[in-house]
Amino acid sequence: MRAVSALARRAVRSERGRFLVEGPQSVRELIRYAAPTVVDLYLTEEAGERHGEILDAARDAGVYLHSVSADVLAAMADATTPQGMIAVAQQPQDTLDSVLAHDPHLLVLLHEVRDPGNLGTVIRGADAAGADAVLISDASVDAYAPKVVRSTAGSLFHLPVVTGLDALATIHELARRGIRTLATEGEATTSLIELDLRDPHCWVMGTEARGLPESLAAKCDRRVAIPIYGAAESLNMAMAATICLYTSATARVRPVGPVPDGAP
Amino acid sequence: MRAVSALARRAVRSERGRFLVEGPQSVRELIRYAAPTVVDLYLTEEAGERHGEILDAARDAGVYLHSVSADVLAAMADATTPQGMIAVAQQPQDTLDSVLAHDPHLLVLLHEVRDPGNLGTVIRGADAAGADAVLISDASVDAYAPKVVRSTAGSLFHLPVVTGLDALATIHELARRGIRTLATEGEATTSLIELDLRDPHCWVMGTEARGLPESLAAKCDRRVAIPIYGAAESLNMAMAATICLYTSATARVRPVGPVPDGAP
Repeated sequence: MRAVSALARRAVRSERGRFLVEGPQSVRELIRYAAPTVVDLYLTEEAGERHGEILDAARDAGVYLHSVSADVLAAMADATTPQGMIAVAQQPQDTLDSVLAHDPHLLVLLHEVRDPGNLGTVIRGADAAGADAVLISDASVDAYAPKVVRSTAGSLFHLPVVTGLDALATIHELARRGIRTLATEGEATTSLIELDLRDPHCWVMGTEARGLPESLAAKCDRRVAIPIYGAAESLNMAMAATICLYTSATARVRPVGPVPDGAP
Repeated sequence: MRAVSALARRAVRSERGRFLVEGPQSVRELIRYAAPTVVDLYLTEEAGERHGEILDAARDAGVYLHSVSADVLAAMADATTPQGMIAVAQQPQDTLDSVLAHDPHLLVLLHEVRDPGNLGTVIRGADAAGADAVLISDASVDAYAPKVVRSTAGSLFHLPVVTGLDALATIHELARRGIRTLATEGEATTSLIELDLRDPHCWVMGTEARGLPESLAAKCDRRVAIPIYGAAESLNMAMAATICLYTSATARVRPVGPVPDGAP
């Protein structure tokens, strides 16, 4: 039990290559999308009754089940309300190479993202936009921190999330593979809405506070600004990423160009 | 001093019609956009030196300045790091009528939004997208709660935010004024990307957990789904609002239609 709660700490997760998945929504998605990685599932009797379909799926997948009391579960959890269910899972072994081997069309590379909620929201937005993977530089918050896992609402198990990357080396490798890199930058002269986004590309984003370092932005194929129509100075990283990724997704579904004369 | 810190409580804000604005970024935007509403500005000597332009603007605007120690400021603050500066301001008196008197083109109505960070992010996204106002139903978190104010990053002072509205009455009034109401709903058959969004309209959004009640959605002109391209079940409210509002903003700048034959 102490071994489980210790996974709330980054050093312990890193050493053991395992992490915590809390609450029915996340556990359901974990079992649905990554059952072979589940090491243990701890749940209260009440949660097992309420979420019979999760219990059935876990049994079918051969997951090792442990019935625990609510107090024991609370002691194992990082969340204040684990809602009766915690799984321990192995961290996926996705790499940049394994992602590139699948000819990705839409990627996002995050540099120095520090806020767990922001990172989780970007992963969820990338999933919703149909991105092929989320790439994260080595100077970022751990993608397997409990708060990140919770805020992805299960999306962490829906697409590869590659962590610990060297941002500069990644930009070079993407270029070598013919994937266009687009640095988001408030002052860029190219606006998001002018771009043709039908070819394979990767959004490259820095933190809200400091933006992308010039040393990285300079190596990207294009610098792109998200238009601001009102008086706001900027958008936070999660919103910026969501807007860019959705614009990319929409461009593939329904490519847009200048409106022809006489169009409605 | 105790009177100031008491403004972290909703009942006190509501009774006095005042609220706290913490940190240089928010205070700067408050003085720039709503100087006449500033009652007092408390700041440390160090913050005054570091942010001379805010101090000058406050003096020019005739704001009542108080030099306080860092300890006193910390005791007044809700934020753990008020960064040397707290203002007390009067709550704006915007109403649905005052918003409608300006022929708004783009609005958002939030129903039962409970999370302060989410509300702040929507206000910021609405500002960035050039929305004319944010409308909030009476069952929502207080828009003048310190955490909401902080997470708007100054946007709270850039556009009218009308609180305490009856959602149903508001939908009726919008319809009466010729403003199309668009209810966001995961199961809707109309997709966001099919819509012509050039006429005046108002997005109507419920919470992530429960969505919009049927009694409200049924009264809107259209039910609209944000397309999900990946495996995510949904988006959080702030992301959903940002995507809808940016799609509206883009439609006005560059209306899009089906791509003509032979388009690139």
